[in-house]
Amino acid sequence: MPPSRLKALNVIGLNSGTSMDGIDAALFRISPDNGCTVTNPRLKIEMLASDLYEFEPAFQKRLKSLIAKGQASLNETCRLNVAIAEVFAQAVHQLLKKSKLSTADVDLIGSHGQTIWHAPEYKDFWGVPTRATMQLGDSSVIAARTGLPVISDFRVKDMAYGGQGAPLVAFADEVLFGHDSVASGILNLGGIANITIINAGKATMAFDTGPGNMIMDQAAKVFFNSECDFNGAFAARGKINEAFLNELMQHPYFKLKPPKTTGREDFGKPYTDSLISRIEKEKITPEDALATLTALTAKSIAQSYQDFIAPQVRIKRLILGGGGAENATLKSMLLKYFPDKIELHKHEDFGISTKFKEALLFAILAYTTHFGIANNVPSCTGASRKVSLGTICCP
Amino acid sequence: MPPSRLKALNVIGLNSGTSMDGIDAALFRISPDNGCTVTNPRLKIEMLASDLYEFEPAFQKRLKSLIAKGQASLNETCRLNVAIAEVFAQAVHQLLKKSKLSTADVDLIGSHGQTIWHAPEYKDFWGVPTRATMQLGDSSVIAARTGLPVISDFRVKDMAYGGQGAPLVAFADEVLFGHDSVASGILNLGGIANITIINAGKATMAFDTGPGNMIMDQAAKVFFNSECDFNGAFAARGKINEAFLNELMQHPYFKLKPPKTTGREDFGKPYTDSLISRIEKEKITPEDALATLTALTAKSIAQSYQDFIAPQVRIKRLILGGGGAENATLKSMLLKYFPDKIELHKHEDFGISTKFKEALLFAILAYTTHFGIANNVPSCTGASRKVSLGTICCP
Repeated sequence: MPPSRLKALNVIGLNSGTSMDGIDAALFRISPDNGCTVTNPRLKIEMLASDLYEFEPAFQKRLKSLIAKGQASLNETCRLNVAIAEVFAQAVHQLLKKSKLSTADVDLIGSHGQTIWHAPEYKDFWGVPTRATMQLGDSSVIAARTGLPVISDFRVKDMAYGGQGAPLVAFADEVLFGHDSVASGILNLGGIANITIINAGKATMAFDTGPGNMIMDQAAKVFFNSECDFNGAFAARGKINEAFLNELMQHPYFKLKPPKTTGREDFGKPYTDSLISRIEKEKITPEDALATLTALTAKSIAQSYQDFIAPQVRIKRLILGGGGAENATLKSMLLKYFPDKIELHKHEDFGISTKFKEALLFAILAYTTHFGIANNVPSCTGASRKVSLGTICCP
Repeated sequence: MPPSRLKALNVIGLNSGTSMDGIDAALFRISPDNGCTVTNPRLKIEMLASDLYEFEPAFQKRLKSLIAKGQASLNETCRLNVAIAEVFAQAVHQLLKKSKLSTADVDLIGSHGQTIWHAPEYKDFWGVPTRATMQLGDSSVIAARTGLPVISDFRVKDMAYGGQGAPLVAFADEVLFGHDSVASGILNLGGIANITIINAGKATMAFDTGPGNMIMDQAAKVFFNSECDFNGAFAARGKINEAFLNELMQHPYFKLKPPKTTGREDFGKPYTDSLISRIEKEKITPEDALATLTALTAKSIAQSYQDFIAPQVRIKRLILGGGGAENATLKSMLLKYFPDKIELHKHEDFGISTKFKEALLFAILAYTTHFGIANNVPSCTGASRKVSLGTICCP
């Protein structure tokens, strides 16, 4: 497809993450920027509207329970695929209604759907080696309800080519931040912290460094009955317990070479419960505990950089996203532990809403697949080649 | 899409039916015939290769068991989606190898996949009204393994528009037999009998008339230890028990107005077991039993025609397909019971292999969706409008 064919489109990105809080829905004007080519896509992004569509509480509860159980009747799985799609379509209509737009203002939808299972490790299944992932939210239903073409099933396609189906965000990071000569890290501080390293002309790297806010959030809840450590205020009043921090830094995940991913299975409630027991037993003050756990996130990121990134590329700036980007104590610790002098930025400095970055990712994937542009990042997912992710469903 | 853009393509159709015998795989040369338009597609079909790919016995056994149980872990459903796709891709490679062709000889694949659940009735699911169907066999995997574009998920799209997701075959019947002025019935005599009525210029009808070979096959097994009543030889030696036949004709399914579908739940083993008990109790001879059960199939088809079709259209010919098309006794009974004088034909008289008609159907659906031609039949499925079925996955 010649780049001259590329043109501006209004694309809605839809996503419901593993937290199942609701559906991120956002409409973007995506257009080719100066110097954009199909092999080096450079896009201008303007967010026209955004909305979080909350699941009905009963629906959300049953969804979480079904996924936690990991079991369903075929009738449930089959109907859930349609039910999620109906709700995704409602999210589109709510987004448009709130922003006084209509489907006539939209060209395309990119929908991630809802992951109900993700099994990236190869295993024999009934005599067939498989790796697999499943996102529900049938694209036919979304297309029928909105009258818009829908591109979906991005992860399964990367897996079909031998990739892990993740991280997909590396492509958005390349498109958004990969076009000047400054080697950059894009650090998402969600529950888990993940980093993408963009180094113009060299292969992009991306992996989970370890905990983001997950441990801090639970500790803030237990010690201060607070939803999180807003702006790092509790941690700022404490002192890092160096002995305890050094011990925590021995977690085997930090030694694993990328590509690697982690989650609640490594750093979730059971792990944090054990840390809290230790903190209480050793009479570490709540403030010192928060300072130490904040340092754990910062130091594990800096250590990952030192061990796995710096030998190949030294970055000049770190572009922060996720809730942790609002944590001043965490940011100062990042600067302290980082072996190189770096500038800290936020996504918003580049006109990108970190809150709707996942929605933007799926809008960018839909836009690029629509124009036949390959949009997985094999150096990050392990896929055997670049390919346009997703399947296309016309209304 | 202007019809001038239509061109000949080599399309593979893939299907595994509810019997799960294996994967029907066939390659067709499909080209626009004289007078073909996008609103009245008329296609020339040439079958270039065909093959039945048998499942590994252990795989087949576990697949049947999982579907019969109607229950699976999410991990199983997720991995099964990939495993079935891997096997479908193997079916493609086996087909091409046996016919000394390569993927370079193919333009497109239409894959039905394997139905694991079909729930066409509207039901509330977690507060959302849904009807749903699920065919596994991920198109990304088939596309990746063959390097060919794959169109799949046909039924879900018809359902998304309010249809029952079936019968899809009506479109193939329209394309294959709907272009002369002769009002025709296309009668598939599989386990269940279904009929499509083509009447140039009027809405196509299609529904299940009731039992096809299902009851006869079981009776042949029980009374004669034979796989089926080959050519209707057992029935030919018996006499119809009219009282018993009249009683069987009271089955409530026969009174239901179309659209309607039936299956093993109405005419399967439990029902036939009860008939066999009656036959034994009343000392009806095995030959008379076969004659009567054959008459049940023939008469219920003729009665359906009389009640639901003849008031709107009187057909001149009946084009037979499925195993029952080989049953001479059944055919002579059809002629006897039919209220109109009709000619009997076979699909093969029109150059169509009845054995690979399902594969042909999915090849035709893929071909027409590829060119943006609508290919569901709302008068048969109940969909709110005509639409191009399926989602498109490029390799």
